[in-house]
Amino acid sequence: MNAGTPTEPRLADADALIAEMGARARTAAKQLATATTERKAAALRAAAAQLRAQAPAILDANARDMAAGESGGLTAAMLDRLRLDEGRLNGIADAVEAVAALPDPVGAEIDRAVRPNGMELVRVRVPLGVIGIIYESRPNVTADAAALGLMAGNAVILRGGSEAVHSNRAIHAALAAGLAESGLPADAAQLVPVQDRAAVGAMLRAQGLIDIIIPRGGKGLVARVQEEARVPVLAHLDGINHLYIDGAADPAKAVSLAVNAKMRRTGICGATETILIDRAYSAPLEIIDALVRAGCEVRGDKAIAALSPHVTPADAGDWDSEYLDAIVSIAEVNGVDAALAHIDAHSSRHTDAIVTEDAATADRFLAEVDSAIVMHNASTQFADGGEFGLGAEIGIATGRLHARGPVALEGLTTYKWLVRGTGQTRP
Amino acid sequence: MNAGTPTEPRLADADALIAEMGARARTAAKQLATATTERKAAALRAAAAQLRAQAPAILDANARDMAAGESGGLTAAMLDRLRLDEGRLNGIADAVEAVAALPDPVGAEIDRAVRPNGMELVRVRVPLGVIGIIYESRPNVTADAAALGLMAGNAVILRGGSEAVHSNRAIHAALAAGLAESGLPADAAQLVPVQDRAAVGAMLRAQGLIDIIIPRGGKGLVARVQEEARVPVLAHLDGINHLYIDGAADPAKAVSLAVNAKMRRTGICGATETILIDRAYSAPLEIIDALVRAGCEVRGDKAIAALSPHVTPADAGDWDSEYLDAIVSIAEVNGVDAALAHIDAHSSRHTDAIVTEDAATADRFLAEVDSAIVMHNASTQFADGGEFGLGAEIGIATGRLHARGPVALEGLTTYKWLVRGTGQTRP
Repeated sequence: MNAGTPTEPRLADADALIAEMGARARTAAKQLATATTERKAAALRAAAAQLRAQAPAILDANARDMAAGESGGLTAAMLDRLRLDEGRLNGIADAVEAVAALPDPVGAEIDRAVRPNGMELVRVRVPLGVIGIIYESRPNVTADAAALGLMAGNAVILRGGSEAVHSNRAIHAALAAGLAESGLPADAAQLVPVQDRAAVGAMLRAQGLIDIIIPRGGKGLVARVQEEARVPVLAHLDGINHLYIDGAADPAKAVSLAVNAKMRRTGICGATETILIDRAYSAPLEIIDALVRAGCEVRGDKAIAALSPHVTPADAGDWDSEYLDAIVSIAEVNGVDAALAHIDAHSSRHTDAIVTEDAATADRFLAEVDSAIVMHNASTQFADGGEFGLGAEIGIATGRLHARGPVALEGLTTYKWLVRGTGQTRP
Repeated sequence: MNAGTPTEPRLADADALIAEMGARARTAAKQLATATTERKAAALRAAAAQLRAQAPAILDANARDMAAGESGGLTAAMLDRLRLDEGRLNGIADAVEAVAALPDPVGAEIDRAVRPNGMELVRVRVPLGVIGIIYESRPNVTADAAALGLMAGNAVILRGGSEAVHSNRAIHAALAAGLAESGLPADAAQLVPVQDRAAVGAMLRAQGLIDIIIPRGGKGLVARVQEEARVPVLAHLDGINHLYIDGAADPAKAVSLAVNAKMRRTGICGATETILIDRAYSAPLEIIDALVRAGCEVRGDKAIAALSPHVTPADAGDWDSEYLDAIVSIAEVNGVDAALAHIDAHSSRHTDAIVTEDAATADRFLAEVDSAIVMHNASTQFADGGEFGLGAEIGIATGRLHARGPVALEGLTTYKWLVRGTGQTRP
């Protein structure tokens, strides 16, 4: 248990707090559900303007969090995620404005039919309702998640990390001011007011109050949420992604895709962690050398280790490791069947890719790999809502229900069936 | 705890049993995921033929269940649900053949885009994976659920009620023979081999083994499943459906819709349970009289009770009751705002309808009622996958995630993203 900041009382009844916030969120969600696109977009633009106008207060608050983090022993990586400056804050405001410009999913027709008796059926998108976001040190999530949730007509309940408490409160105050200006309910975006971790538990069991929980953060957070939640969760635990270099791969593409997929940014969930090289592929050493030159540690099975003194032997754990670092495991496989079997056994079903010039092999790989994203001759680093043209993403989901892969505005909606008749009764 | 039939040992380790069945189902699901439409349809036609060929064995088995049910004190309604005869069994086989003729959802493109860098993105439907069906006395569910699950490329794990154990085993044996003939894996449709209720608990916590649970049965079963399940559930708990007669309703439509929505079949989840009549509506007594003539007990609020000696006073519980019987509660409301408020407070968000000739009021009702199905000038009794043109339904869902309203083949699928490139790396 985390007792929160010293000035805060412990939370007497977390369930009561979340029930009360959930009831207010539901009321706000009802208003948001029928708000026009222009109204929602105007509110987001007002929120972005407030983020810019309140920059001094937000940066002051962030400085308090940074000071506490430095004295509290946060790692350099955590401090970097926590840090705001004018450029980053402008980026946050820009992102809110970008969401305001996205097409509104609410009200979109999914399909339409007329029954033989003349009844007209239309499936239309409607908001999910109330979305809970549980996140760690990045204060930008406060604005990003609120913007995406609101644009899809939902109320959001935000619970950020205690290390970013002052930053989150300052950002939330700016968002709330923007909502108030535009006449949308302030309860559309609520920040859990206490840092006590009991509030997280209460959110996770708030069935009927919160419609979906989206965790944003490291594997520890996501694992806890997936383990404890009774509310449905949209998330991915990890990205153990594979790049399979087929015997019929073009060597130039193989090298550039391997280096990009692994090394462009090693810390993102779309980074490749394991490369599988077909025994029939002509130039495996080029791939190893290119990775080593790019600064990557290469761990290989026996066949791969025999090719280069730069390769260290992989152990069994390497095939199930998400390094999120400049480390790659490489195995030799005997053709696409063995690659499919390895991927089926070890993939986290996030993003897997094949490099080949053989269309039939590519089609088979695309059909048989059971992952949220399956690629042919493209870098796994493209696994991202923005890169997919979705405008922004709230996260990437590897579960099978509701939404899979990059989740953006559409994933934050559900649908209802509208039936228009002229008095039809059922015989 | 139910110890099952006397000849059965108690289940030593329910989790191990379900884990083992789940692993076999996953293997089968992988084969089904890439099976062609014709292959799946042929398997279902073979299963239907086996159901017809094995009719004597199935009817014998059913006779054993009926005898046990009669001596065990099952109600007449339960015995009726349990009973098979040649006509009903033919109907079950017909239904399996009808599913075989439905359009295959697997492989259908949801959308397609080409990115500025030339990458092509396609979202295609793929099977959900492994579906668990937990049901009560109706043995037809064994065949219906297996057929829908298989046609959408899924493996199914079936757990029927102990009162139908022999019927379910005989039906399952016929299905398995049909699958075997067609070369699809027998593990594509497994029946939990023991009646010990611990197996149900093991299914409900089989995260990662079973992708979704669909309960089919009474409110007690659904409530238990929703309460205990850690696996996602598609279901509706009840159908507290409303018919709102607006001041601008056509009286002839109002009477025929009220009688049909309530009385056509009172025991189905799409039956209307509460009628709301606008104070401005001209002929409320006609509606009451027509319902009474049709054999319906009418419980009304003060204003309604004052209209007819046939109306008994409703109490507070009536507005939250799913009668599933020839009983209706009727309240007078002051216009569409009051109707919307009543529905928001009392609807189970299954199906709610308005009767009006005023297009603007109808549009508002359709937009603001937050239920899976919202109707204008049509009977709530149409809330059914078959009536919606979906061919067949596995159930109706009132949750907000994944699928809402009638769930048919599409609801038993998810999607994946296929990305086709020509060597693109991410800058």
